[in-house]
Amino acid sequence: MCDASGVDVEGVHHRTIWRDGEGLVRAIDQRRLPFAFEIVTIPTAEAMATAIADMTVRGAGLIGAAAGYGMALAATEASREGSSTTDVHRRLAAKAEVLRASRPTAVNLAWAVDRQLAALASIDDADELVAHAWATAEAIAEEDAAACEAIGRHGLPLLAAIHERTGRPVNVLTHCNAGWLAFVDFGTATAPIYAAHDAGIPVHVWVDETRPRNQGARLTAWELGQHGVPHTLVADNAGGHLMQHGQVDLVITGTDRTSASGDVANKIGTYLKALAAHDNDVPFYVALPSSTFDWSLLDGVGGTPIESRHADEVLRMEGVGPDGDVVGVRIAPEGTPAANHAFDVTPARLVTGLISERGICPATREGIAALYPDLAGAPAGGA
Amino acid sequence: MCDASGVDVEGVHHRTIWRDGEGLVRAIDQRRLPFAFEIVTIPTAEAMATAIADMTVRGAGLIGAAAGYGMALAATEASREGSSTTDVHRRLAAKAEVLRASRPTAVNLAWAVDRQLAALASIDDADELVAHAWATAEAIAEEDAAACEAIGRHGLPLLAAIHERTGRPVNVLTHCNAGWLAFVDFGTATAPIYAAHDAGIPVHVWVDETRPRNQGARLTAWELGQHGVPHTLVADNAGGHLMQHGQVDLVITGTDRTSASGDVANKIGTYLKALAAHDNDVPFYVALPSSTFDWSLLDGVGGTPIESRHADEVLRMEGVGPDGDVVGVRIAPEGTPAANHAFDVTPARLVTGLISERGICPATREGIAALYPDLAGAPAGGA
Repeated sequence: MCDASGVDVEGVHHRTIWRDGEGLVRAIDQRRLPFAFEIVTIPTAEAMATAIADMTVRGAGLIGAAAGYGMALAATEASREGSSTTDVHRRLAAKAEVLRASRPTAVNLAWAVDRQLAALASIDDADELVAHAWATAEAIAEEDAAACEAIGRHGLPLLAAIHERTGRPVNVLTHCNAGWLAFVDFGTATAPIYAAHDAGIPVHVWVDETRPRNQGARLTAWELGQHGVPHTLVADNAGGHLMQHGQVDLVITGTDRTSASGDVANKIGTYLKALAAHDNDVPFYVALPSSTFDWSLLDGVGGTPIESRHADEVLRMEGVGPDGDVVGVRIAPEGTPAANHAFDVTPARLVTGLISERGICPATREGIAALYPDLAGAPAGGA
Repeated sequence: MCDASGVDVEGVHHRTIWRDGEGLVRAIDQRRLPFAFEIVTIPTAEAMATAIADMTVRGAGLIGAAAGYGMALAATEASREGSSTTDVHRRLAAKAEVLRASRPTAVNLAWAVDRQLAALASIDDADELVAHAWATAEAIAEEDAAACEAIGRHGLPLLAAIHERTGRPVNVLTHCNAGWLAFVDFGTATAPIYAAHDAGIPVHVWVDETRPRNQGARLTAWELGQHGVPHTLVADNAGGHLMQHGQVDLVITGTDRTSASGDVANKIGTYLKALAAHDNDVPFYVALPSSTFDWSLLDGVGGTPIESRHADEVLRMEGVGPDGDVVGVRIAPEGTPAANHAFDVTPARLVTGLISERGICPATREGIAALYPDLAGAPAGGA
């Protein structure tokens, strides 16, 4: 897992988002990967909302960290623009709502916005407000990285046990990108994979392409390649066949919102892989930091807001063309209607376990509450 | 369903493959759709094997018809090249094996080759051999079209009943292309859809993109659009979410090989949709002409040969670029390993019923044998 504070890209150490020596918020532009590795500066809270919405930054943990930094930018702007303490807080609240609305499904976004609002609510002094907002943003990012590192530690024994039993490389299937690119560092679904690989356990990863935005083909394949982890890219359609024929030992995915009862909202198509895993007795684990739990949600299938994105993401595809330039191509008949639901929800009954920074628990209300008694609230009553 | 003998493309009547007035075998080049509509001539048996392998012609029924015409070309060549009746038949047998090897999974291919070999086996006269081979090729094509028309007739009441019950447009999800492009005419999975649409029953089709070759986005969306059937293109990942939220009334797919016990080999990803349909109580039907049954196969999951195709189909994508030209783009990091299994097998337990030219039957050995006692053989003994 590289070292304790980041991941190397072509030998140079990087996080997905950070504040640089000049106080600027900088991030890897994930819309350009894997065809170009570029760093962008995100100068304002509004620009951060746009960067989240257009997926310059994406992935559950990274969206949370980005929202944390976005709120620090918002606090800086509000304290400059505000005519009074009340006006500063009013402006901060308005900017918070713009950030909160940038994407609907990942709960880390609202979690980070609310954490900042709570941390800043009682601060009257403008300088103190700004300093505390940046400190909170840094804390959110640090905690995200630490949680992912712990998830790797807790997940490693699952892979080790499979290797011990089979004597073969451990075949892990993952969907979308819950790698270090989706977080500040390490990733969630990939953290146990990197941990096992670095511990000398042979691992091979089936990488779901993850249409329509191809986060698997573009991001997961890229980061596994950078880290030297053996992997094979497959169409999203392939996982059922692979599981049916004993070629998958373990599925690990991330999540954008997990209900207090263990229902898992994640990238569209995750539910189909969970069904196939269940049908073929393949363990299906979901890795998450506790910031991804929605403690107020008990019915994930019925109650998770599912983002609909632009049809163009289905109708068009980006890649490297014959001249070596990155070009977009239309891949369907002109005028074809398309729908683009970004997430689906996997019912808890299909989830073998949740790998969090505190350890592994069953995907049940009781199992989660036992690991997070301080956060889960009392599982009294029904549902 | 247009009329009794074909489908219109921009007002002009077409089949997918035919012998023209000059005796040439002509076909729609399906590699170019939907970006260009082009007719190719297939001059030799060897060229036909190539056209099947490179998917100029594709789809279960069309592969069978193409093999029928390929055998007629082979008979013509063998009778010209052969030095004796024995030599003619030896040459014909050799050409038959080239055709048979062009693709492994669709059973219609071997079925058509074997039907031609059986029809020609006892013919000594060269002219008679050639004439009979062409007549058999035409018969195979005609029977395919007639079977698909009958499948439409038998499937129509399923959609009519749903519309009667709900009063809403019938939402059908289909995977890959089992439309008229996959057969000589009408199609299988689409035949009930066209029949319902033409009968005034409102239908809306969710079209799975069908990575990696995008037969849904390229072919099914195109032919539904040509016919004026309302449809929406979705990523292959979306079907589970749609079914979970009551947006699919019925799934209909085709098949490339169905075991005598009802296991269904079809385009990779079909199994995942069948699992989702089962999990959400959505009826899952498979439409097929009887030429797609493999009467010798009882264990479809274990016994179906699954074609592996070139990794480039996963790593590259074709579409219309910024200049209006059709270009290929690389969509993954350079050097990414990829696997490309073309089919998977849906166990019979997940299939609600089979829609064939003789009617609808359960996907069980007994149900199939009851409809096809002349072909199925006695279901004595186990498995």
